[in-house]
Amino acid sequence: MKHYIGAGNPMHAQFEPKAAYAAQHFAWSFADGVGTITLNRPERKNPLTFDSYAELRDLFRALQYATDVKAIVITGAGGNFCSGGDVHEIIGPLTQMRMPALLEFTRMTGDLIKTMRQCPQPIVGAIDGICAGAGAMIALACDLRYGTPATRTAFLFTRVGLAGADMGACALLPRMIGQGRASELLFTGRAMTATEGHAWGFFNALHESDALLAAATAVARDLADGPTFAHGMTKTMLSQEWSMTIEQAIEAEAQAQAICMQTEDFKRAYEAFAAKRKPVFGGD
Amino acid sequence: MKHYIGAGNPMHAQFEPKAAYAAQHFAWSFADGVGTITLNRPERKNPLTFDSYAELRDLFRALQYATDVKAIVITGAGGNFCSGGDVHEIIGPLTQMRMPALLEFTRMTGDLIKTMRQCPQPIVGAIDGICAGAGAMIALACDLRYGTPATRTAFLFTRVGLAGADMGACALLPRMIGQGRASELLFTGRAMTATEGHAWGFFNALHESDALLAAATAVARDLADGPTFAHGMTKTMLSQEWSMTIEQAIEAEAQAQAICMQTEDFKRAYEAFAAKRKPVFGGD
Amino acid sequence: MKHYIGAGNPMHAQFEPKAAYAAQHFAWSFADGVGTITLNRPERKNPLTFDSYAELRDLFRALQYATDVKAIVITGAGGNFCSGGDVHEIIGPLTQMRMPALLEFTRMTGDLIKTMRQCPQPIVGAIDGICAGAGAMIALACDLRYGTPATRTAFLFTRVGLAGADMGACALLPRMIGQGRASELLFTGRAMTATEGHAWGFFNALHESDALLAAATAVARDLADGPTFAHGMTKTMLSQEWSMTIEQAIEAEAQAQAICMQTEDFKRAYEAFAAKRKPVFGGD
Repeated sequence: MKHYIGAGNPMHAQFEPKAAYAAQHFAWSFADGVGTITLNRPERKNPLTFDSYAELRDLFRALQYATDVKAIVITGAGGNFCSGGDVHEIIGPLTQMRMPALLEFTRMTGDLIKTMRQCPQPIVGAIDGICAGAGAMIALACDLRYGTPATRTAFLFTRVGLAGADMGACALLPRMIGQGRASELLFTGRAMTATEGHAWGFFNALHESDALLAAATAVARDLADGPTFAHGMTKTMLSQEWSMTIEQAIEAEAQAQAICMQTEDFKRAYEAFAAKRKPVFGGD
Repeated sequence: MKHYIGAGNPMHAQFEPKAAYAAQHFAWSFADGVGTITLNRPERKNPLTFDSYAELRDLFRALQYATDVKAIVITGAGGNFCSGGDVHEIIGPLTQMRMPALLEFTRMTGDLIKTMRQCPQPIVGAIDGICAGAGAMIALACDLRYGTPATRTAFLFTRVGLAGADMGACALLPRMIGQGRASELLFTGRAMTATEGHAWGFFNALHESDALLAAATAVARDLADGPTFAHGMTKTMLSQEWSMTIEQAIEAEAQAQAICMQTEDFKRAYEAFAAKRKPVFGGD
Repeated sequence: MKHYIGAGNPMHAQFEPKAAYAAQHFAWSFADGVGTITLNRPERKNPLTFDSYAELRDLFRALQYATDVKAIVITGAGGNFCSGGDVHEIIGPLTQMRMPALLEFTRMTGDLIKTMRQCPQPIVGAIDGICAGAGAMIALACDLRYGTPATRTAFLFTRVGLAGADMGACALLPRMIGQGRASELLFTGRAMTATEGHAWGFFNALHESDALLAAATAVARDLADGPTFAHGMTKTMLSQEWSMTIEQAIEAEAQAQAICMQTEDFKRAYEAFAAKRKPVFGGD
């Protein structure tokens, strides 16, 4: 049987190489296994549009099959992360739509979160300045999040007359910062300061603005140099076990880890340990 | 088709207006859309009795259909929140009961928590002094909680020979403050200090005793002035998604938020934004 | 009908008394209702072997039926808790195994966590120094955890090329310290400092090394002197309600607590309260 893993995998042919992807509605760059998405309408604090939502969703979906991209960084241009759905380009039109079109929209935005959770690459958020609405949800859907002292994160759906229930917020935010803090942010729409976000476990660390992207990228490169097949399994299981019983989760991990014990990376790590050197992982 | 929302809704006729409710076993007041419940046997630190349990349950159940009450504050008289089930009036009789009566009691107390979670109004706790046993569970079932430096919260069921599993504590407390801290409080029955409660996410903020009720009421009024239909959806979804998968939760929110996008409040917010003024919400 | 609870219970005969258990691959001692497990290969920082995994699993399984052991302390000899699976005795052999043997191993290690969660006794971890890999998972499976300023806890599966999904880590760790912090520890394998572990709710408290075991043992003895049948129910329900809906959890607790209200310990507590003395519990 042919060995299908790697760039030669015919299942992946149409997607390869993601390294060369030409983005339309945000910036994309690639180096050392790390793909970087930059939301880049800085004059408006990087709002989302129908087009950028859809392209982000399609990119993360394609990344499920990309074998050259090992980790992702997502950030915003000009000192802000993302101001959320554009008021003029999104909220205005939504107020005129009937249910089928509304549901098509809310499902598309939800699909962005689903595809971020479903791609195997760890996603590292580099989040400065304004991080609001759908932007806050994109931050929440990252695996790791780094902020600056100036980051202000607001789940401000209530400010536009909507529920805090948007793109999975009522499920994801309570598990990140606790049910009581999440309730406050979702009911009131107030901004969480960077200090709160760090103390509450939303941010893994804070960096100064001029060091943020480099710090997030360094973490992503370390992950890209690691056992990436196993990282993908870690990410899968963190989602997969979300609402299992403890017994189901333990059995699920027995299977998942046994799979990882058949990788070359597991052997590479053992051999490196025995030889007292640093392992070089291959992602298989 | 007749427009059924509002005070003229015939489904609600028998409950209206909650503003005029005459409470028997606690105090009730109403102003500016906010109903305030005051547990008021201060000489005994506001213990619960069979009667007050049942009336609280019935009130929160009726509030599911009340359209004039937009938010709730719950507090205690005389510098304490609630000392829990009255030892003489509740615990003594329970020690004499057989299983059907015991289960009727534990289901009634559990129903109080269920109805607090099921009514659409956000519930704001103003919690000073002693907050113990069933009182701690009522605090835990609030959406937002404010304390004072003197608040002492104890899930002290173990002190009367019972399990920490009371009224949903083993489900709700771990999601509020973390599994390890919840385990300590439930196994040992020790009091959580106000400082711990704030640091751990149980309290949203602490205020001095003489400012507590005003602060909690101000939050409740802000919520009552907001998009209350959407607030009800936020509350529903925070409970509804408790044990869904991530994918189920995102689809559930796509539906919930699409419903909210058909409210007048969503249009009102957009029009106010476009006109650079503050929106006036109507709850529909 | 014969009264089966207690040392005379024929269902338990073959396991009694656990107090006299002779451990092979770790140390076991018993006093005042508290059994203490000491991982004791200090020259290698107390690594686990195939044998010690299996014996720990068998001991915790037997403890489900032990009526003399009321609480457990687990600790490590020589200033460290546990360095995890022995690289030479476990990881080397695993790299040579085929799937059935790998799955047998991962299921055995998972069974250790399951039996720790399923025995009714509260388990108190006294965790100093190195707490790594499977050792960190054993710590995580305790009900209460006490550390020292020197404790370093690392879920370092990624360092040997594996997933963070090991023995239930992706389910248990996020509920203990939050989803974002758990993600960082599981993806990067970095050590959590004692200060972080305390601030994040992993450790219930920190003690100096020379006071740690005494402090953990004092907590375990207090629990052993308490209403141990009810403690067992608290522990059962903390696991049982892990992925229930809120409504299911409240009904489950109505039943669980009604059962506890039929214990003698509930009566003993009430009578002691009425007589203004401290209750003496019997565990039935």
